[in-house]
Amino acid sequence: MENLEIKSIFFKDDMLYLIDQRKLPLKEEYFACNNYKSVYKAIKDMIVRGAPAIGIAAAYGMVLAAKEFLYENKGNFLSNLINAGNYLRKSRPTAVNLSWAIDNLLNIAAKHKDKTPEEIYYLLYDKAREMEREDLLTNKKMAEFQDEIIPQKATILTHCNTGALATVGWGTALGVIRTAFYSGKDIFVYADETRPRLQGARLTAWELMKENIPSKLIADSVAATLIRDGKIDLILVGADRIASNGDTANKIGTFMLSVVAKTYNVPFYVVAPSSTFDLSIKSGEDIIIEERSPDEVLKIGNTQIAPKDFPVYNPAFDVTPHENITAIICEKAVIRKPFSENIAKLSEEK
Amino acid sequence: MENLEIKSIFFKDDMLYLIDQRKLPLKEEYFACNNYKSVYKAIKDMIVRGAPAIGIAAAYGMVLAAKEFLYENKGNFLSNLINAGNYLRKSRPTAVNLSWAIDNLLNIAAKHKDKTPEEIYYLLYDKAREMEREDLLTNKKMAEFQDEIIPQKATILTHCNTGALATVGWGTALGVIRTAFYSGKDIFVYADETRPRLQGARLTAWELMKENIPSKLIADSVAATLIRDGKIDLILVGADRIASNGDTANKIGTFMLSVVAKTYNVPFYVVAPSSTFDLSIKSGEDIIIEERSPDEVLKIGNTQIAPKDFPVYNPAFDVTPHENITAIICEKAVIRKPFSENIAKLSEEK
Repeated sequence: MENLEIKSIFFKDDMLYLIDQRKLPLKEEYFACNNYKSVYKAIKDMIVRGAPAIGIAAAYGMVLAAKEFLYENKGNFLSNLINAGNYLRKSRPTAVNLSWAIDNLLNIAAKHKDKTPEEIYYLLYDKAREMEREDLLTNKKMAEFQDEIIPQKATILTHCNTGALATVGWGTALGVIRTAFYSGKDIFVYADETRPRLQGARLTAWELMKENIPSKLIADSVAATLIRDGKIDLILVGADRIASNGDTANKIGTFMLSVVAKTYNVPFYVVAPSSTFDLSIKSGEDIIIEERSPDEVLKIGNTQIAPKDFPVYNPAFDVTPHENITAIICEKAVIRKPFSENIAKLSEEK
Repeated sequence: MENLEIKSIFFKDDMLYLIDQRKLPLKEEYFACNNYKSVYKAIKDMIVRGAPAIGIAAAYGMVLAAKEFLYENKGNFLSNLINAGNYLRKSRPTAVNLSWAIDNLLNIAAKHKDKTPEEIYYLLYDKAREMEREDLLTNKKMAEFQDEIIPQKATILTHCNTGALATVGWGTALGVIRTAFYSGKDIFVYADETRPRLQGARLTAWELMKENIPSKLIADSVAATLIRDGKIDLILVGADRIASNGDTANKIGTFMLSVVAKTYNVPFYVVAPSSTFDLSIKSGEDIIIEERSPDEVLKIGNTQIAPKDFPVYNPAFDVTPHENITAIICEKAVIRKPFSENIAKLSEEK
């Protein structure tokens, strides 16, 4: 099983196609972007979500911006490109892959600023393509570490969606599960539904179903009892940003799982590409947590589930302290404690 | 504020009226029962929910059964009454108040078995009325203990609905909050939405709004971060059944809160009438946990939120071990550790 049926993102004939993740699992539709502002919209409205997928979408957003500014003079071309990058950067505040991808492309433009806009455009296009390929390779490399952490028979708890939909393909935490399953291990998955946006119910369940991986869906608060009762062998989650000390921002609910896992000695793994590390920040305290619309909690689809306009606190992410994490799996290694040292070492290897 | 606008349950002209809690907060409609089988349906389908409210509904269900069998001969009258009790008992397995209420009425029938069916019917009716009045008085007595546990200014986290809707009026955990608020304390409430049935979003938010108690709604998994960050002064929850050692069955999600509260030293209180104690069981291990329909997780209203027929594990309750509980508040006392001893003492006082 080398190629999945699930294609979350592809670029063709100057158009970026994103599977509309708001409509899954009921409809499999693609949202087409022909300019960077519609890529901004797609990221902001969570048509595309998942830190790695957001990164690649933003990279193609920069390619579309370059195309748009192609016939401007060089100065305008470059400054417009920087402005487009800053605009795209604001679409979501927490995932570091977004800025990482934009900076990658802006660095190439800066490095080749003496070339023509058209030449620069092709360089950006090639870079985005490369990043897309790299994302898949990175996922597969991380997933190979399943050898080291998943026993022959295992019940695994996961949160949110970290699968093919959250990436270019395969996935981070769910990618590890997928590889373990295809390697012939006896895997059972409990998927947290992941309120408020229900990425677990809508997206992870959909991916698990597509591949017939044995699994059950649970309300987020059921996980604690399963963990206490010894029904979970390990927990695998993704990450949106990892500080230099290993503190990890991920989907709201991750921290709660980590507290229960620590209390009952269940291994808790974060799976994320090295582009998720943000060495510019010391700890989780410096991570900006995005607060989203009250309607995500007050409504489901068009159904009002709480009194209209009732006040809501709706943070999209939380921060899991490094003490609660057993190991962080990236494409280079299974990083264990002490995290600060080992993360620093690994990034020097770059 | 002695009488609430909110009336969850009342009996009039041989009819039991229950506010239809499935339709709140969008519609305020009453469901009318004129026989015990429709009371069974109302409890099973959660038209009425909340352990104390279920108890009173079942008591009136027995009154309706007595009315139905009034013209049978005495032997049939009594045996039909016992059968009706056993039928009603099966409507929900976890709340002990249900059996407690049915047994109360059957004991009266047994004690007065030499009287005529009509005389017994009136005795049962009087007992149900008395239990209804008692429930409200009990709530108010528990709520007075707010003096002892709630500071002048407090941010309180609560789970599920334990208010006027879960009882005849006022409430258990939310009753304590209500009394603290009306006593002039500076109270702020975070209400867990409480998946899967969203009693927090639908019912607690509705009650808080009706009385203008300052509050915000959160997804269940947000609570952990608030607790860690010192934003919660205390946690108040209800109970469906309390074992003799203090282990407490309550709405799914309660256990998770208790683990996080214990980790970060936040006081965790259970508020429940003494009818919630089940001294016939030693510990939480003996409590039967009701598993409900997968559709509660797969759908919200008529909106499908996960792939159709995806497997689900949907326990309605979990068990919080007594070690995680700071105190149990009933109408008689604030019960502190050691729970086994203090619960035994209290029940001897009966």
